[in-house]
Amino acid sequence: MEHSPTSSEHIPVTVLGATGMVGQRIIERLRNHPWFRIASLCASEKSAGKPYAEATQWRLPSPLDPYIARMQVQECIPTVEGAIALSGLDSSVAGPIERHFAESGFAVVSNARNHRMDPHVPLIIPEVNADHLQLITRQQFRSGCTVTNPNCSTTGLVMALKPLHDSFGVTNVDVTTLQAASGAGYPGVPSMDLIDNVVPFISGEEEKMATEPRKILGTLEADGIRFADMQLSAQCNRVPVLDGHLACVKVGLRQRATRQQVEDALRNFRPSPGSLSLPSSPEEPLVYLGNPAHPQPRLHRDLGSGMTVSVGRLQECDVLDYKFVVLSHNTIRGAAGAAVQNAELLVRSRLCGALQRYAVFDPPEQQKHL
Amino acid sequence: MEHSPTSSEHIPVTVLGATGMVGQRIIERLRNHPWFRIASLCASEKSAGKPYAEATQWRLPSPLDPYIARMQVQECIPTVEGAIALSGLDSSVAGPIERHFAESGFAVVSNARNHRMDPHVPLIIPEVNADHLQLITRQQFRSGCTVTNPNCSTTGLVMALKPLHDSFGVTNVDVTTLQAASGAGYPGVPSMDLIDNVVPFISGEEEKMATEPRKILGTLEADGIRFADMQLSAQCNRVPVLDGHLACVKVGLRQRATRQQVEDALRNFRPSPGSLSLPSSPEEPLVYLGNPAHPQPRLHRDLGSGMTVSVGRLQECDVLDYKFVVLSHNTIRGAAGAAVQNAELLVRSRLCGALQRYAVFDPPEQQKHL
Amino acid sequence: MEHSPTSSEHIPVTVLGATGMVGQRIIERLRNHPWFRIASLCASEKSAGKPYAEATQWRLPSPLDPYIARMQVQECIPTVEGAIALSGLDSSVAGPIERHFAESGFAVVSNARNHRMDPHVPLIIPEVNADHLQLITRQQFRSGCTVTNPNCSTTGLVMALKPLHDSFGVTNVDVTTLQAASGAGYPGVPSMDLIDNVVPFISGEEEKMATEPRKILGTLEADGIRFADMQLSAQCNRVPVLDGHLACVKVGLRQRATRQQVEDALRNFRPSPGSLSLPSSPEEPLVYLGNPAHPQPRLHRDLGSGMTVSVGRLQECDVLDYKFVVLSHNTIRGAAGAAVQNAELLVRSRLCGALQRYAVFDPPEQQKHL
Amino acid sequence: MEHSPTSSEHIPVTVLGATGMVGQRIIERLRNHPWFRIASLCASEKSAGKPYAEATQWRLPSPLDPYIARMQVQECIPTVEGAIALSGLDSSVAGPIERHFAESGFAVVSNARNHRMDPHVPLIIPEVNADHLQLITRQQFRSGCTVTNPNCSTTGLVMALKPLHDSFGVTNVDVTTLQAASGAGYPGVPSMDLIDNVVPFISGEEEKMATEPRKILGTLEADGIRFADMQLSAQCNRVPVLDGHLACVKVGLRQRATRQQVEDALRNFRPSPGSLSLPSSPEEPLVYLGNPAHPQPRLHRDLGSGMTVSVGRLQECDVLDYKFVVLSHNTIRGAAGAAVQNAELLVRSRLCGALQRYAVFDPPEQQKHL
Repeated sequence: MEHSPTSSEHIPVTVLGATGMVGQRIIERLRNHPWFRIASLCASEKSAGKPYAEATQWRLPSPLDPYIARMQVQECIPTVEGAIALSGLDSSVAGPIERHFAESGFAVVSNARNHRMDPHVPLIIPEVNADHLQLITRQQFRSGCTVTNPNCSTTGLVMALKPLHDSFGVTNVDVTTLQAASGAGYPGVPSMDLIDNVVPFISGEEEKMATEPRKILGTLEADGIRFADMQLSAQCNRVPVLDGHLACVKVGLRQRATRQQVEDALRNFRPSPGSLSLPSSPEEPLVYLGNPAHPQPRLHRDLGSGMTVSVGRLQECDVLDYKFVVLSHNTIRGAAGAAVQNAELLVRSRLCGALQRYAVFDPPEQQKHL
Repeated sequence: MEHSPTSSEHIPVTVLGATGMVGQRIIERLRNHPWFRIASLCASEKSAGKPYAEATQWRLPSPLDPYIARMQVQECIPTVEGAIALSGLDSSVAGPIERHFAESGFAVVSNARNHRMDPHVPLIIPEVNADHLQLITRQQFRSGCTVTNPNCSTTGLVMALKPLHDSFGVTNVDVTTLQAASGAGYPGVPSMDLIDNVVPFISGEEEKMATEPRKILGTLEADGIRFADMQLSAQCNRVPVLDGHLACVKVGLRQRATRQQVEDALRNFRPSPGSLSLPSSPEEPLVYLGNPAHPQPRLHRDLGSGMTVSVGRLQECDVLDYKFVVLSHNTIRGAAGAAVQNAELLVRSRLCGALQRYAVFDPPEQQKHL
Repeated sequence: MEHSPTSSEHIPVTVLGATGMVGQRIIERLRNHPWFRIASLCASEKSAGKPYAEATQWRLPSPLDPYIARMQVQECIPTVEGAIALSGLDSSVAGPIERHFAESGFAVVSNARNHRMDPHVPLIIPEVNADHLQLITRQQFRSGCTVTNPNCSTTGLVMALKPLHDSFGVTNVDVTTLQAASGAGYPGVPSMDLIDNVVPFISGEEEKMATEPRKILGTLEADGIRFADMQLSAQCNRVPVLDGHLACVKVGLRQRATRQQVEDALRNFRPSPGSLSLPSSPEEPLVYLGNPAHPQPRLHRDLGSGMTVSVGRLQECDVLDYKFVVLSHNTIRGAAGAAVQNAELLVRSRLCGALQRYAVFDPPEQQKHL
Repeated sequence: MEHSPTSSEHIPVTVLGATGMVGQRIIERLRNHPWFRIASLCASEKSAGKPYAEATQWRLPSPLDPYIARMQVQECIPTVEGAIALSGLDSSVAGPIERHFAESGFAVVSNARNHRMDPHVPLIIPEVNADHLQLITRQQFRSGCTVTNPNCSTTGLVMALKPLHDSFGVTNVDVTTLQAASGAGYPGVPSMDLIDNVVPFISGEEEKMATEPRKILGTLEADGIRFADMQLSAQCNRVPVLDGHLACVKVGLRQRATRQQVEDALRNFRPSPGSLSLPSSPEEPLVYLGNPAHPQPRLHRDLGSGMTVSVGRLQECDVLDYKFVVLSHNTIRGAAGAAVQNAELLVRSRLCGALQRYAVFDPPEQQKHL
């Protein structure tokens, strides 16, 4: 079934960086979306003017929608059609382009790191800190706004920390990641680096993992976000896996807890109410797997259409308090799916001027967009 | 050049578990060894009676020596020729067989976990704790004795901890490993588990990493080894790499130290004097690599013929004190090479009755056996 | 949604070899099947008596249905409930068990090689030779019958040869395969054989590829199948791919044809009419991909829910006449999906006594089981 | 041991394209070479002026020689020191640069495709057609000359065809390759294309395999090379292997031969006399492996220091006459090692003016450069 171009009741979306890996995933996630329609596709000058199918090398196993294939790619200029700009732009170019779109009245939902730590820009995982969205009321744009999602390796970690932080207080986090190749985009990591090999270095990643969780798990106060009072230290590795970032985590807790209490907290994760009825919110945002060899990237990354984060191997730790393993799909939960879900949250919140004229309905249970 | 069968001045060695992965590596390491000759090859009943080339599937890129290929495999019974029994037996069968060989007067050098934690059995990395070899004088065998080397994932870690422990005192160790497939032997891990995947579980491995380092880094006292006073916590993962275990390590130190002091300690590792002139001791047992993306398994596992451990990415840590990455070749430094080196140490020490009649010479520099 | 256990109008199916890789895929393909329900699960003595979830290690990314997870595994004895026996048994045990089920009145649909070349056993790809199903009327069973599907590497090849043979006559076929690890089941090929490696040998595979196509492309005559008059020669390789067999094919044609005519023949493949309305028949059984680097296993194996075979890279050949590349999903189109589709064909044909009392309906377009 | 800079009796060599993958392998092969010393390293403008260790990312497991590491990279201009120019330049730039060096009096040994098919440029595998070197006497340069080696996938194939062509006459060759990632250089093939995947397309490769063997196996006549009268057809695939191209070959023979005669021909390969005493010629240029699952890339690519080609799986073929599998190391036998060996042949031949003043000696057996 082709994507319908004329569903006038849908909110028009422009995809920035449409030809990249995250852009492709965004397009895939918008297929048959109950609220959104793709109004325009933007990419670099080099791609502009070409039909999308020619401008990109579609790399996803799900076939490219023929309607999208024929759409003409445009330059990243805010004169394109759209109320929301879903951006998969690389951080090397995202900064000024995304700012320009926000100033021009777009609701910008960004996946790049450029504005994540800006004091007035919310850094959102809807299930964790939907309330931080209030920050956008302090942004200086007339009707546009900017919302960001975290780095792909941060998201899974924070999802697992959230219930522990709520229940016991997290003071220290040691984390070592085994990250998938798709996290570096395409062409990204050369084969010669990942055949019979791993690379214990990902530029900038360890720094992001040490800071972003403190903002996301922070509290919204009168003058902005007060960062969570915890220390994090990360070591990041690239491994020969296509999709799915695995993190080995050790945590120190403020408050004593038994292993069973910790497992219960993970099993009973309560997502922010604001996230509940969004089309991209999975039935189970966080799932605890009892098999001692789980989670594994290939087996569990696609749970909940890639939006479910899985945790397992919870054990007592002789150095900090507990240790466990977390897995999340890096280009869905950690990027494209996160951006689409944030756009949904933004629409539902009615906080952004650009979107206030759009009414959306709650999807009936059987139409959850997963 | 074929392995010479009649070099009567060489010490006769029997290889236990000769057909397995570690056994193959032991045979490879004994080729042209200046002190040792392979006198017999032992394996399971199923293999006994066959020429070695038929009993095994030789899986190493270095060709099998034709003389060894024709040797007839024997059962693991101490009537075989040999003064030293180098054992690559699996722990499921190693216990009683190795004990039987020791009781029968063999100097047993074991790679299995069965006897590692026995109070009178030394657990040795020659560069780290050659002095622990004294323990064998307390063993009850007439002339035989038993020496063990650590688990493959322990060795690299301990090599890196040793200079830090000597200089600053190590109190806490958080370690997450990315371990190679060869660590599980052959057939070992199915392809379907490691194509586009990693497995966050290796049976028994996390326990070994939490205990063995404390014995190796402990001190020899009148009544045995006093274990080092440190806490360790490990998370172990299997990754699609053939050889080479990588470990991401975070350490807490008893004594304050600058980053430069820590790097200096790693760079100036002083091996135990006892290890210096052994044929299998590499020129550099521990090497610090300055490139921020090093060490990597495929690039650095073969340094020093697989006996050099490499360290890199030293950084301050916000949770413990410092973090870094260690790499070691798991079937050489972590298994076969370790066993051969331990056998050399045992010969040189003259502590074991079985070996006291053998004189060995110091290899001239150009004949180092690497 | 759980699999409904009490849909009495569905045809009861027993899965033989339910715990193996093909068995798991069969169970996955039967989920929400419009005609079939799983009535019993059979496996080895070792598994019998256990709940299915305990007896097997579920290795598919799609979660195991909780109803199936709780079903008690039974031994492979024809007293279990079922009208159809869908067999994923390994050929080492399939022969007598499948025969026993057929003698006892089951419609046996086998994936094993044991009976494929029996003169009275049809070897079926529904889109290619649905008419061969008539053979079962010559089987000696009262009400049971046996139908087989080809070897996983044969199926894709034959799908591509069929339109060429119909249009131009195929006289010679040179084929070299790059086959996925899942073709060897689990545990199957050790990681140590497929990390940084390929293996140019798969036991028995080259022989099957040289004979099975001649039966499938043969003609049904009064006294059985007259084999197609063509020569085939195969070289089979195992490569580090999870699912999806790729075949590089060179063909000689009886009748002259331009490159365009050959491409047209591939593009205009007409499936056997009998296959058209089966729930498991994909919309496009054979698809020609124009991109010069396609098909690729990871990108195209899942087309048509794994039932579409893709072809590409058609070129003139200087030795035979044309060359091209074929890809098919080995555990779906080449095994489990093929078996389910054959079972559907058998039901629809009303040729097997065991199934004559079951009426099935044509699925409306939107309920195609893919 | 460092590379000695002042061994004035060695022939000075400049390496063109020194920073690329083939350049690195050339440098590795020249270490301790009995005839050659590296006099200069040339690369792109971007690298010129930097110490070699800074200009390149050394990607080989064998450590970079410290003397080479400190050498300053120069631009590719024939004023650099050297009598021989060993070129690992990419074909996109090799053409004019290599011609310029030849015109300026260098003996140019090229690995690029640019001049391979020029009528006066010999395309050489020393063991196969050393006599073709005579062609350089027709080149128009005063003292310089140009010699080329074949494409990496051609070399192994031709080595196996040579004894069959000599004994029985080869008329037809169907070949399908499984080629390693290193064949595309660095960065080359993205990880995302080779994790759980193969790519059935390598630009220009199939054409080279269809033409180059006919020149190499051709005969030197008064007016140039008469190409061998055989038809070749290739299908080329990229697989997730680091080094080692595997080829599945089917051949038609002019003259009837038994399987044993064909195996004998392969086993009794006689290299061109001119190749025998070259330092880079392996003891066995072609080896037949009897194990039915051999050759395999990881196990056999390094035989003879990467210069031995291995063949196996010889079987009768129902379409052509025989089929077998060939393996060769693509960056050694297929590139860097081939170039060094060709340079040796050129020196020994005394056909090139640039090299006539250099006397070389036969290496004693124990100093073979492998």
